[in-house]
Amino acid sequence: MEIGFIGLGNMGRGMAANLLRAGHRVTVYNRSPGKAEALVGHGANAAGSVAEAADADVVFTMLADDPAVEDVTLGAGGLVASLRPGATHVSSSTISVALSERLAAAHTAADQDYVAAPVFGRPEAAAAATLFVVAAGARRVLEPMLPLFEAIGRRTFVVSEQPHTANLVKLSGNFLIASVIESVGEAVALVAKAGVDRSQYVDILTSTLFSAPAYQTYGGLIARREFEPAGFAARLGLKDIRLVLAAAEQLQVPLPVASLLRDRLLTLVATGGGELDWSALATLADRDAGTGSDHPA
Amino acid sequence: MEIGFIGLGNMGRGMAANLLRAGHRVTVYNRSPGKAEALVGHGANAAGSVAEAADADVVFTMLADDPAVEDVTLGAGGLVASLRPGATHVSSSTISVALSERLAAAHTAADQDYVAAPVFGRPEAAAAATLFVVAAGARRVLEPMLPLFEAIGRRTFVVSEQPHTANLVKLSGNFLIASVIESVGEAVALVAKAGVDRSQYVDILTSTLFSAPAYQTYGGLIARREFEPAGFAARLGLKDIRLVLAAAEQLQVPLPVASLLRDRLLTLVATGGGELDWSALATLADRDAGTGSDHPA
Amino acid sequence: MEIGFIGLGNMGRGMAANLLRAGHRVTVYNRSPGKAEALVGHGANAAGSVAEAADADVVFTMLADDPAVEDVTLGAGGLVASLRPGATHVSSSTISVALSERLAAAHTAADQDYVAAPVFGRPEAAAAATLFVVAAGARRVLEPMLPLFEAIGRRTFVVSEQPHTANLVKLSGNFLIASVIESVGEAVALVAKAGVDRSQYVDILTSTLFSAPAYQTYGGLIARREFEPAGFAARLGLKDIRLVLAAAEQLQVPLPVASLLRDRLLTLVATGGGELDWSALATLADRDAGTGSDHPA
Amino acid sequence: MEIGFIGLGNMGRGMAANLLRAGHRVTVYNRSPGKAEALVGHGANAAGSVAEAADADVVFTMLADDPAVEDVTLGAGGLVASLRPGATHVSSSTISVALSERLAAAHTAADQDYVAAPVFGRPEAAAAATLFVVAAGARRVLEPMLPLFEAIGRRTFVVSEQPHTANLVKLSGNFLIASVIESVGEAVALVAKAGVDRSQYVDILTSTLFSAPAYQTYGGLIARREFEPAGFAARLGLKDIRLVLAAAEQLQVPLPVASLLRDRLLTLVATGGGELDWSALATLADRDAGTGSDHPA
Repeated sequence: MEIGFIGLGNMGRGMAANLLRAGHRVTVYNRSPGKAEALVGHGANAAGSVAEAADADVVFTMLADDPAVEDVTLGAGGLVASLRPGATHVSSSTISVALSERLAAAHTAADQDYVAAPVFGRPEAAAAATLFVVAAGARRVLEPMLPLFEAIGRRTFVVSEQPHTANLVKLSGNFLIASVIESVGEAVALVAKAGVDRSQYVDILTSTLFSAPAYQTYGGLIARREFEPAGFAARLGLKDIRLVLAAAEQLQVPLPVASLLRDRLLTLVATGGGELDWSALATLADRDAGTGSDHPA
Repeated sequence: MEIGFIGLGNMGRGMAANLLRAGHRVTVYNRSPGKAEALVGHGANAAGSVAEAADADVVFTMLADDPAVEDVTLGAGGLVASLRPGATHVSSSTISVALSERLAAAHTAADQDYVAAPVFGRPEAAAAATLFVVAAGARRVLEPMLPLFEAIGRRTFVVSEQPHTANLVKLSGNFLIASVIESVGEAVALVAKAGVDRSQYVDILTSTLFSAPAYQTYGGLIARREFEPAGFAARLGLKDIRLVLAAAEQLQVPLPVASLLRDRLLTLVATGGGELDWSALATLADRDAGTGSDHPA
Repeated sequence: MEIGFIGLGNMGRGMAANLLRAGHRVTVYNRSPGKAEALVGHGANAAGSVAEAADADVVFTMLADDPAVEDVTLGAGGLVASLRPGATHVSSSTISVALSERLAAAHTAADQDYVAAPVFGRPEAAAAATLFVVAAGARRVLEPMLPLFEAIGRRTFVVSEQPHTANLVKLSGNFLIASVIESVGEAVALVAKAGVDRSQYVDILTSTLFSAPAYQTYGGLIARREFEPAGFAARLGLKDIRLVLAAAEQLQVPLPVASLLRDRLLTLVATGGGELDWSALATLADRDAGTGSDHPA
Repeated sequence: MEIGFIGLGNMGRGMAANLLRAGHRVTVYNRSPGKAEALVGHGANAAGSVAEAADADVVFTMLADDPAVEDVTLGAGGLVASLRPGATHVSSSTISVALSERLAAAHTAADQDYVAAPVFGRPEAAAAATLFVVAAGARRVLEPMLPLFEAIGRRTFVVSEQPHTANLVKLSGNFLIASVIESVGEAVALVAKAGVDRSQYVDILTSTLFSAPAYQTYGGLIARREFEPAGFAARLGLKDIRLVLAAAEQLQVPLPVASLLRDRLLTLVATGGGELDWSALATLADRDAGTGSDHPA
């Protein structure tokens, strides 16, 4: 299959390489130059523009945020303007539910197909083809994509025929991770003030009822107070919680834990911690208990 | 070793049986009669009073709540009055930090030893000797107990020399479980209102970043809306969150998520759901989104 | 002075009438027809378009929300396109801080002047010229407006030279009113469940430390459970709290009470109470205590 | 009437003086000596013990907190032990609902009468006989007390025949004051970060919809950041919110704003602000916005 791939950051690079490895012809594009070279060495074509990458059966986008996706898709010379009728845009970025709805409408109006397929996993999982893919879209459009998802991930979940529901599931996952960070942060602040060792406590949690990656990864960072370099910056975490709350307000679903997380992340950002890893949220519990330093970093 | 065991409910029965199985002489006691018979059939002695059970080197208590432990320990004819000098009380019940501190002081004043050793695990784990034991107490007192903990559990965590810290860790674990219930309940209400299947959503969570028993057990109950019979009643969950908040106030550690959980559990209890499983907390998110039934049950 | 007045709803009508009464030449415009007649009877000119109303030294706008103001100001044939250089737009609507900033920039770019002058008060106060005017803008521009504000209100507060700060102050006032509704609603639910009479309780509050209009007006509605017809609909209250939170996020100021109010108003709207008066927020406290009806209305 | 008066702090002194002034025979007692002298100079008798003060038709108590009232009433040589049958204990202290219920039961068992009559007002109002008295108790017992309440206050509110409801109303009033402090603190942090003057903002509030003593007093302290000396210490505010929450939990009434206030006050106390005025709560909003100092004081 002829595949275009737009967005060669830490995640996109690995995904594109795995599509190549599965035997597809892949044309890659990245706005800032110099990202395509390694992939070209493995057989990819380098496109000089979005339109050039769009000359394909399927085009993946894996970009940082709403504005980047909006620009590449709806902007001048973007995918909606350049994709051929009947071709499919697979959007894997973590974007708002509202933008996903707008993309669906724009592609439909242009006789193009659209699938949302955001992923769970970090750059190492993207490189190792062990991502989890959450996909949604019309059955007719989505089924031919399944072999591509198999090439980049270990398991695909098809959640509904409405593309934006996949984005909602992805955002809800980030909400749940932030909930883990906040609640573990509070629990650690509590037991630590009573004299229990932070690392041993996290070890107890992850050896028993909470033996999941979310607790292992973030519990470890919290125990070691290791907030730099950021795996995922607090500033971006705040953005994602804002997107969850916006989608929830549209659907009229109150989410009190998400509201609390928004205030905590906003506090972290306002007091200078925006570039720290979002697990630095846990510093607020120590601070409010009078046991933290005054500044998160 | 001569062991007394007081409290033969769902948990205590299994723990006492495993102590017998490990070769110890165990004398058992339960306030309401008829609980000791099966254990006597396996070689236990039945005591007619707390004082009789207390005629031992070590006495375990595994009771429902603070008043029950207070009664058996500090009441007339209780452990403090009857335990021989140098003998050890092992308290495995989930009790308040404040009561654990009072027990420690009372036993010390009576030249007795005291260890707190609450456990994580359900009745099946108690029967199968696969509990997790969180223990705290003076090293000199605690070390001789370790083989007993091995007999009832799969792993023991010694958290400090202050007995009450083990109770705090136990309570914090229940706080974290309630946090999982609330946050997953909110997330399920959100995606379900957008048309995603509840069970599939929980399957996605537990297949990916949240592959831990807490999410599997409670996510499943939430997806299936299976709140009866209660594994752990909302009324008792409210009590435990109250104990966490009381300990946290004593230590001056604000816990905003715990405060939210308290209000939600209180709402559930006030609106008639006190005897439902505490995972019924998740019904409130549906209710507030206008998609739930008016009553939790 | 030649004055244009756009927006003849319950508030605008009274304000325009008082400008006429003060001896100004006033040309009025309202999108839906039939609103201008009474004012024409008192000497106003009726304009057939925004542009016609804009042929003046000063143009007031008093409209329902952001989209209405955006349309009248930035849309085709709007104020920015039609106001003469050096003329002043006085925006009295309750709008977002972000829109106020955009209006300021657009008018400046068109060599026009812009003042934000939202008001506190209900339609009766608008008719009686007893509004409170909160104004902000460049001193040079704002000073000539002060006699106009005197004509419509009892007191004017000039808060800064940045127009959008007046909108922020207005929004913050609505936030504080909603805080009163929520906290009084909780207090009433509490004492009423203990057997204290709701009306007597509100009488105690407003006779003592809380003898202010916000408590008298909303306390009375809450005590009498009188939520229809809506003086200010819950749906609009939710919109204003959303605008407060958006401004606060832009400024990086966490507002935990506002977050709580947003969730409560969203709950009220999601469960069918969007058209009730926003004091119906108080029904949620009764509902969560198990003493309310299942539905807000 | 023969009156005993126990507790001659800032509040009790003024109340006792006004009872004297109304022509009653008043015997006063205070645990720490030296407080009675001024009153004796105005005609009071000084008692050497609680029992001596209890030799009267009516005994008022006006003490700091639950333990003090418990000691004076239920302790050895206390009111329950020494009051004559048919005599009345008027409890004006701000105490818990639970203690008020215990006092009612104890006095009834001893054939004594009990009325709860907490007051709203500061020491100046106690001296000037302009307190507001919130009273509850059996009609037969309460009616003869009304002239005494007239002697100490400007208005009496009789809320029910259950004494503890008066304590609940009093506590709920403190909850509402704390709500004002928190919400005004958030609003001030917001507008101040946008450049609006803090004092002018509070002036706007108290000139318009919020023209009540609670806003004038606390708004002024917040605007001027004047938190020492404490009129009412944060530590005591935390205690009162705890008592409100305890009463609400007993009645099964969730109070989300009170839960938030508890966490905020606990944060203030844990970070060193326990002896500041409770209006220092407002410093947390500035701190979380990155505009405050790191320490409340």
